[in-house]
Amino acid sequence: MEVQVPRPLLFRMPEFAVFSDTDLPPSAKDLLQNSLFPHKIILPSNPSLSLLTNADSDPGFLFADIAFGQPNINDILNSKKLKWIQISSAGFTRYDTEDFRNEMKERGIIVTNSSSVFTEPCVEHVFAFMLASARNLPDALNARIKNADPEWPRFRHESKLLTGQNVLILGYGSIAIRLVEVLKPFRMKITGMRRKKRGDESIPIIGSEDLPKALREADHIINILPDNLDSKYYFNSDRFRDCKQGAVFYNIGRGATVDQVALYESLRSNHLAAAWLDVTEPEPLSEDHPLRSLKNCFITPHVAGGYQEEFTDLVRHFLENFRRFQKGENLLDRIM
Amino acid sequence: MEVQVPRPLLFRMPEFAVFSDTDLPPSAKDLLQNSLFPHKIILPSNPSLSLLTNADSDPGFLFADIAFGQPNINDILNSKKLKWIQISSAGFTRYDTEDFRNEMKERGIIVTNSSSVFTEPCVEHVFAFMLASARNLPDALNARIKNADPEWPRFRHESKLLTGQNVLILGYGSIAIRLVEVLKPFRMKITGMRRKKRGDESIPIIGSEDLPKALREADHIINILPDNLDSKYYFNSDRFRDCKQGAVFYNIGRGATVDQVALYESLRSNHLAAAWLDVTEPEPLSEDHPLRSLKNCFITPHVAGGYQEEFTDLVRHFLENFRRFQKGENLLDRIM
Repeated sequence: MEVQVPRPLLFRMPEFAVFSDTDLPPSAKDLLQNSLFPHKIILPSNPSLSLLTNADSDPGFLFADIAFGQPNINDILNSKKLKWIQISSAGFTRYDTEDFRNEMKERGIIVTNSSSVFTEPCVEHVFAFMLASARNLPDALNARIKNADPEWPRFRHESKLLTGQNVLILGYGSIAIRLVEVLKPFRMKITGMRRKKRGDESIPIIGSEDLPKALREADHIINILPDNLDSKYYFNSDRFRDCKQGAVFYNIGRGATVDQVALYESLRSNHLAAAWLDVTEPEPLSEDHPLRSLKNCFITPHVAGGYQEEFTDLVRHFLENFRRFQKGENLLDRIM
Repeated sequence: MEVQVPRPLLFRMPEFAVFSDTDLPPSAKDLLQNSLFPHKIILPSNPSLSLLTNADSDPGFLFADIAFGQPNINDILNSKKLKWIQISSAGFTRYDTEDFRNEMKERGIIVTNSSSVFTEPCVEHVFAFMLASARNLPDALNARIKNADPEWPRFRHESKLLTGQNVLILGYGSIAIRLVEVLKPFRMKITGMRRKKRGDESIPIIGSEDLPKALREADHIINILPDNLDSKYYFNSDRFRDCKQGAVFYNIGRGATVDQVALYESLRSNHLAAAWLDVTEPEPLSEDHPLRSLKNCFITPHVAGGYQEEFTDLVRHFLENFRRFQKGENLLDRIM
């Protein structure tokens, strides 16, 4: 029997140095190292623990052709060899400036993010919010009501069917596209808001000029806006005042797109029936933050994008882009 | 200008007497009375408060052609004129005996239930359970974890995506059919169990002989079995032992189909990862019931079928069947 040496081993050359600053769990780290071999991996001396925090500056970065994680901006600007950055999150506020974009363009550095990885968990998270809200789940899980109590029918009637209700999604990207797909069996009326309508959207799209009218009609307002200069405190008192009485507000984008004081007022007065937030400003909210005192405000600690296979899929997504990068193909989730 | 008398008023005759024992809220009561006019409505002297309790015997029942609600069984057996009963719930355990079925058949009394009305809320409720479980929602809503804590990625990874997971539905009726529709975008592997396979089901159907194998493979076990002699304690120690380690069990059928002690043991030992129950035996469980002491047991107080428009839609459903009854057409949700 002939022993076959795997072909890739014979032909792969250690061409690229990949700087990876994410503190990956062993299985994901092994997958990255084994799949990249014989290319070089540069690990920082002080790996970051979160997908959301800026990595410390690291001398090893100077040798990197590729950066995967949340690379330090100064390291990027000082780099000489860098050709491609893959950000390990969906949000990229830190990098989302005119200056940085221009610098990347001038130097021909490709920037991608990992939004594909987080689309499905984010969609399931906001959908869990919507159904938990519709089914009055937090109250129902604590209720000790008897079937024959006069209160029982009244309690049951606090639930609302999703079918036929009106949804407004702010920010039309991969999460919105997938959310529309999973909501389809519920025959809801769904509208999206997007800065520039492209014409290939799966739902009617409005611009910000039509937002007041759309807010007045929406039962569910889903905020997936990214955090940038234009979106800072996008949801302020005026916007909340435009919302339909009894609407439910969801935020799985970024906390800074919402004025938390205005949100508090709208919830306290029961103008909004409830808010379900995965992101806040700051994160986490302090234990005595007013929003925490409200019975109609539900907060999860920025976990919408999380799931069991998250890190493995982050690495798989990077490796798919690495394969494309080597072949000169278009990369997935390119943002610059 | 000619004044037109609505045609129905001219031609409708007070032909039928409808006994309605449900304590309807004013708007639903008005809808029923206005729509039935000039037919007669007989109201009991002691209306029942719940859709689930047996109505008291009432002398007025003797004059009824039609009964709408939870009519007293002795009243039904003693009636002389009764032609049709519409039960105001989806479950009909009290009426589901060989003797009662034979009596209805012999006397030519049609029996329908209101399952169509409860399909959508039950589906949204169990789907809310599934997503709340997948997204680890009860824990996440209580968590005070910081993004940069070492615990944070671990917390995120307690969530699981629904996509690609394995679902087993016990009891293939209108709820199962609709549940399969709404789960479709999640590309789950769905199997159903049904006493008699008819061949027109939208998912692969197994019989009880193949249940052990199906239980070993299912990530989500959804119990929608009705309560009857065959299904009493259907989920016992043996069945729970057959379940896959880490599976999640849901019950939105009837509490008596589950041996609560066996369920407790399976949850306590973490063989089942969690149970989400809308029905229990008894209802409600006492405050010191062992199931209430478990962190992985989530209980709502028999509200899966409830929603804001529940009573109005119950009346609408009855009126549609009344229209069909008058015309001699097939009635919706006929059970006997």
